[in-house]
Amino acid sequence: MCVADVDARQRVDLIIRARYVCLVRPAAVLEHTSIVIDQGRIVDLLNNDDERLRKYAPGSVEDLSRSHIVLPGLINAHTHLGMTNMRGLADDLRLIDWLSKHVWPVELSLVDEQFCRDGADLGIAEAIRSGTTCVNDMYFFPEATAASCDAAGIRAIVSGAVFDFPSPYGSGPEEYRTKGHKLHKQYAAHDRIRTAASAHAPYTCSDCVLETVAQDSTAFSIPIHVHLHETRAEVEDSHTLNRDSHLCHRSDQTCRPLANFHRLGLVTRRLVAVHMTHLNDQEIDLLRQCNSSVVHCPSSNLKLASGFCPAYKLLAAGVNVALGTDSSCSNNRLDMFAEMKLAALLAKGLSDDPSAIPAQTALEMATINGAKALGIENNVGSIECGKVADLIAVDSDCIGMTPMFDVVSHLVYAATGANVTHSWVNGKPILRGGHLLTLDESSIKARSAVWRKKIIEVQRQASNEVPVA
Amino acid sequence: MCVADVDARQRVDLIIRARYVCLVRPAAVLEHTSIVIDQGRIVDLLNNDDERLRKYAPGSVEDLSRSHIVLPGLINAHTHLGMTNMRGLADDLRLIDWLSKHVWPVELSLVDEQFCRDGADLGIAEAIRSGTTCVNDMYFFPEATAASCDAAGIRAIVSGAVFDFPSPYGSGPEEYRTKGHKLHKQYAAHDRIRTAASAHAPYTCSDCVLETVAQDSTAFSIPIHVHLHETRAEVEDSHTLNRDSHLCHRSDQTCRPLANFHRLGLVTRRLVAVHMTHLNDQEIDLLRQCNSSVVHCPSSNLKLASGFCPAYKLLAAGVNVALGTDSSCSNNRLDMFAEMKLAALLAKGLSDDPSAIPAQTALEMATINGAKALGIENNVGSIECGKVADLIAVDSDCIGMTPMFDVVSHLVYAATGANVTHSWVNGKPILRGGHLLTLDESSIKARSAVWRKKIIEVQRQASNEVPVA
Repeated sequence: MCVADVDARQRVDLIIRARYVCLVRPAAVLEHTSIVIDQGRIVDLLNNDDERLRKYAPGSVEDLSRSHIVLPGLINAHTHLGMTNMRGLADDLRLIDWLSKHVWPVELSLVDEQFCRDGADLGIAEAIRSGTTCVNDMYFFPEATAASCDAAGIRAIVSGAVFDFPSPYGSGPEEYRTKGHKLHKQYAAHDRIRTAASAHAPYTCSDCVLETVAQDSTAFSIPIHVHLHETRAEVEDSHTLNRDSHLCHRSDQTCRPLANFHRLGLVTRRLVAVHMTHLNDQEIDLLRQCNSSVVHCPSSNLKLASGFCPAYKLLAAGVNVALGTDSSCSNNRLDMFAEMKLAALLAKGLSDDPSAIPAQTALEMATINGAKALGIENNVGSIECGKVADLIAVDSDCIGMTPMFDVVSHLVYAATGANVTHSWVNGKPILRGGHLLTLDESSIKARSAVWRKKIIEVQRQASNEVPVA
Repeated sequence: MCVADVDARQRVDLIIRARYVCLVRPAAVLEHTSIVIDQGRIVDLLNNDDERLRKYAPGSVEDLSRSHIVLPGLINAHTHLGMTNMRGLADDLRLIDWLSKHVWPVELSLVDEQFCRDGADLGIAEAIRSGTTCVNDMYFFPEATAASCDAAGIRAIVSGAVFDFPSPYGSGPEEYRTKGHKLHKQYAAHDRIRTAASAHAPYTCSDCVLETVAQDSTAFSIPIHVHLHETRAEVEDSHTLNRDSHLCHRSDQTCRPLANFHRLGLVTRRLVAVHMTHLNDQEIDLLRQCNSSVVHCPSSNLKLASGFCPAYKLLAAGVNVALGTDSSCSNNRLDMFAEMKLAALLAKGLSDDPSAIPAQTALEMATINGAKALGIENNVGSIECGKVADLIAVDSDCIGMTPMFDVVSHLVYAATGANVTHSWVNGKPILRGGHLLTLDESSIKARSAVWRKKIIEVQRQASNEVPVA
C-alpha cells in the first residue's frame, strides 16, 4: 500500500475485529463484525469482510475474529470497593453479629484513606478481570475510590454515604455533605468519574439528612444512591415504628421506608434504590410512576438472608432494574457474570416460571439498565454508533462454552468472569489477553497482605474484649 | 545424598507439598502440609518441614507449597454427560416445550453411541477442569460414558436409566435391563468405574419396572439412581392420579411418588434420589429412617423452575444430601463450585437464616456426602490416611481470592472451577497446571463442532414440521 493510500484513509484509533458482536440494544448479535473506534467512541460497525473497512486507517487493530464475543462492558450498579480487603472476613452469621462483631470493629480501627484506596484497587482489579467497566460505588473516603477508578481507567460513579453518626470519615452528616459537595465539584467535568448523592439507609439517616440528599441530587443533577428495603425487619419495624429494632427507620413516620423516602422527595427518576426486597404492588407502581431504578443484588440478598427482590415483577411493571454484586464481604466475589446468571435463575425459581428473566433480559440488566439507572445510557450500556466504547471481549473457545448455539444464552448461563479476556473504557484498553494494563497485581496483593495482618489483629483484640460468661 | 540413603527410604509414588490441606473430615485445614501417596492411596500427612518426610523416596513431587489449597476431589452426584453437546440448546422455556420441541427431537434423531461418547468426553473435560473427580451419571449408552470416564481417568458411577418406552438405546425396559446387567458385570471389579441401577422417573416407569430396579440394586449391591419429586406437578398429579398430566406417575396408586417408591422397596440406604423438591416433613423423616440420600441440583431446579429442595431441612433432619449439576442443558455449566455456592446461598434465602448451610457444610455436600450417597465413602470424599488419593488443587494466589481469612469460606464463596489447577484420581494426575493430561481438547472441540451442525439441522427440520396456523 502506498503512502497516498494511507493518506486518503480516515485515521481512527482502533478497530476490533470480532467473531460476534452482541449489541444488547437492539437485542441482536452480529457475526464477523468490526467495531471502528475513534476518540473513545464507536464510529462504525462493519462486516469483517466489508470493503468499506478499507477507508479507515486504524492506529491499532485487535483481531478477535476467530472466537471472541464483544459486548458492552458490564455495569456493577452497587459496590463498596473500599471494603474489598475484608473479603470473606466472616460468613454464615446473622446480620447484626456479622456487622457488630466483625465488620464494624475492623472499620472503626482501620478504615482510612489508604485502606479504601488499597481496597478499591483490589476490587477494581477483580472487576476489570471479570468484565465490569463501570461501577456505582458507595463507601467511606470516596476521594480514594475516585482516584483509584481514575488511575485504573474504569468508569465510576462514586459517593460517600451520609448518615447520622460519626465515623473514621467524618464527624457526622454535615461533614459528610461538605466533603460530598467538594467531590461533586471536583469530578463534575470528568469524562469517566462522576459522583452521586448517597444516603446509607433509612435506619441510619434522619429525615433532615435524607432531605439534604434529595436537594443535592437536584442541585448537582446526580443520582441518589441508597440502600432501601434491604430486609423485612427494616420495612416492618419502620412501619410499626418499633424503636427497639436496630433496623427501624429514624423518621417519626409510621410508614414503610419507601413511603417516607417518597414523602421526603427522594423517589425521583434519579433514585437508585439498592436491594428493594419485600415490595408490595403499590410500591412497585410508585417506582414505575417516578421512573426510579432498582439495583438487584441477588448473591448478597441470599447470603445475608435479606429477602427476595421481586426483580421479575418490577421488570414486568416497567421499572428499570440493574444488577450489583454488593461488597466482597457479602458475596464474596465481584463477578457480574455470576449476578446475571443468578438473577435469571432466581427469578425462574421464585416465579415458578422458567421464562422469567430470560438471558437477554439478564444481560440488559447488567448493561443498559445499569446505564439508565446511573443516567449515562446515552453514552454506554449498548454497542451503538456514537456511543462511548466501553467494551469487553469473552473468548468462546473454551470447553465450558462448547458448543455454542446462542451467544446471549452462553453469556448468561455458561460464561463466567474468568472467560473475559479484553476490556476497553473510552476506547482505551485496560485488560488485554487476560492481563491488566493499568493496575499492578503484585503491588495490590502485597498491600492486601499487610491489611490482612492488621485485620486479623483487630479481630483477635475484638474477640479478647468479649467478656467470658 | 548417597545411594545407601535412597535405598533406606520408603519408595512412594507421589508427594504433594501444599500450602493448605482441607481435609473436609474432620472439618480442619492443615497448613504447610505434604500428602504422601503410594499405590493410589494416601499413606501419610506431614508438615512440609517435618523430618519424617525424609524417610520417603517419592517417584515425583508436586510442589504447591506457596499458595495452593489441596482438597478432596468434588463429587458431582447427578450428571447426564452424554448430553453435553446439547449445552444451551434452548433456555427460558416451559419444561414441556423445552423437552418436546428441542431436547427430544435431537435425542430421537441423533443419539447413538458416538454422540454419547463425544458428549461425555466434552463433559468430563469440563468436569475435570472445574475440580470434579467423580460423577454419578445417567444417560443412554452408558457403555460409551463408562469408556469415556475410564479413558479420562476419572471415577464414575454410570447407568442407563430404565423406563417404559423405546428409545435410540433399546426397545424398552427389558432390553435396558439386560444391557444394564451386562454393564454391572463388566465393571464389577473395576477400580474406578462402577454402575448403578437407574430408573428415569415416576412418570416414565411403571411399578413393575421400578421393582426390577430395586431387585437389581440388591442383587448387584449398587446404588439406585432416580429423578424423584422433581416438580410440584409430578408430586401432586401423582397424588391425585391425574392421568391428563404428563407428570403423573405410572402407578395406579393415589399417592405421592416417594410413597410409591417406598411401597415398591426402592427407599433404601442405596437410594440416590435426585431433585426432591416439594417434600413434606413425613417424607423427610422417611428418608432419614431409610438412610436414603438426596442429590440437590440447585442450578437446574431454579433454571427449570422445578421448585425448591429443602436441603437445609433435610440436613438438619440427618438426611445425607449431596450436590449435582444435572446436565449442561439445564445449568448450563458442570462446575461444582457454582453448585456449592448456590446451595449455600439458596438455603440462607429460603430459610431466612444466614447461618443455614455454612461453607463447611456446602463443601461436605460436594465431597463426603456425595461419597456416602454412592457408597464409596470409605475410599473417597475426604483426605484421610488410607483413603484413595482423589484430590484437587486450587490456587489461592489470584485477585478474586485475595485476601484469604478462611480457606473453606473462600472455597465456597470466592473460588470457581476456573481456580482449579491440578487433579488426581487414584493418585494419578489428570489435570496439571490447568492442562488436561488424559483428554485431547482439540479433538473434543472438533467433534463438538460436527454435532453442533447436525443438531442445528435437526432443529431446523423440527421447526419446519410445525404446521403453520
